[in-house]
Amino acid sequence: MMSIKKATRISLVDQVATQMEQLIETGTWPVGEKIPPEMELMVEFDVSRNTLREAVRALVHAGLLETKQGSGTIVRSSSSLGAAIHRHIERANLFETLEVRLALEREAAQKAAERRNDQDIKILQESMKKCWDAAKNSDHIQFIEADILFHKAVVQASHNQMLIDLYEHITDALNTSVQDLTMLRAPLDYEKEIHQELYEAILAQDTDQAVKNVNSYMDELKRTLTNKKGSHIWGEMQQY
Amino acid sequence: MMSIKKATRISLVDQVATQMEQLIETGTWPVGEKIPPEMELMVEFDVSRNTLREAVRALVHAGLLETKQGSGTIVRSSSSLGAAIHRHIERANLFETLEVRLALEREAAQKAAERRNDQDIKILQESMKKCWDAAKNSDHIQFIEADILFHKAVVQASHNQMLIDLYEHITDALNTSVQDLTMLRAPLDYEKEIHQELYEAILAQDTDQAVKNVNSYMDELKRTLTNKKGSHIWGEMQQY
Repeated sequence: MMSIKKATRISLVDQVATQMEQLIETGTWPVGEKIPPEMELMVEFDVSRNTLREAVRALVHAGLLETKQGSGTIVRSSSSLGAAIHRHIERANLFETLEVRLALEREAAQKAAERRNDQDIKILQESMKKCWDAAKNSDHIQFIEADILFHKAVVQASHNQMLIDLYEHITDALNTSVQDLTMLRAPLDYEKEIHQELYEAILAQDTDQAVKNVNSYMDELKRTLTNKKGSHIWGEMQQY
Repeated sequence: MMSIKKATRISLVDQVATQMEQLIETGTWPVGEKIPPEMELMVEFDVSRNTLREAVRALVHAGLLETKQGSGTIVRSSSSLGAAIHRHIERANLFETLEVRLALEREAAQKAAERRNDQDIKILQESMKKCWDAAKNSDHIQFIEADILFHKAVVQASHNQMLIDLYEHITDALNTSVQDLTMLRAPLDYEKEIHQELYEAILAQDTDQAVKNVNSYMDELKRTLTNKKGSHIWGEMQQY
């Protein structure tokens, strides 16, 4: 838990905005929740209402905060990198974004096979079990959540924080800005197999097999997108 | 050339900041140059000095602008995504960042081999020629610039704008924040060969060979980093 420090000199607005950004990035102010009341923050940061409001507006512009009429200021994104990627993806082509995500996932699977430790293996097993349980109960929503957890766990096992951050921001932006995507997933049975194979390659530290599994996962996604309603998205890849 | 529109309602600060961001992203206000004088912008945006200053501070906080005492406000970065990546990289591990760049470059080389058109081939040839000329004259600075151009041209030939943006922002951030990196490059002769091989794979649309070339380029970089003063950087990869 971070403690709030009193601002001391020069650009007070920037100091307050930077501290608020850190409170958001560390999760002290969680995404989706309201930030503390204006009066409380004015006292804690030791600044005027104008300075505080200006700092809030800077973070609203950066996409970290959102001011809703009547309901105060809520945290919208947990990092400025995430918010920038989010805004970028809103304007970008879905197919291009998926291609970038795959490149990061393939690199991550390879490094995960090299570097995974016991804790990583345990988390992979747990998220696989959640997928199996959801599939058994035909709970589509729960399955999607567990599926995202599994893929994030693979990337976490790469132990490359830059890769983890980029992958998570891109995945989160895709999941929130493209609702259709979750509906385009391959059937539950197939996914279960894919998870098992990728997990086994990582467990066996077989980097080549891990990369092959990610590629076959992507091929399956391509087929799903081409066969189903996503064909207009995938059609864009033919333009070159 | 974008024309400046007068701001109309509600959050004037956010409107002005968004317009200024667009002027920066489109290059109307180029990186490294001063933005127009305050009085001129107050008239063009039709806002007060306070509103204008608040918008400027929001973009300073986002890393797009920089206010230097006595010399006005200059453009520091051409996009909020670039600025966010820049700030992220300043706090990140160099080795991790290089690993991410390699993942993007490998994906790009593969897609470039698939999708390159005549214009891409022409640009690749031109940047290769610049590298050769610089190598012939033993002009290290010019060689580094031409080398960056060549690798960017490969990524451009992938025709994936998301990949291009991420790669360029990461490369630019690495080149400006890690001056040492340019000094750690492999000898001129080796680079010349690498360029030629990668170019030929892309020309022949041989995706496998293109990926292999990027991998061998990275292996060479690893050796350089391990043998020279960069060993402390590369040593970090042994920690897993």
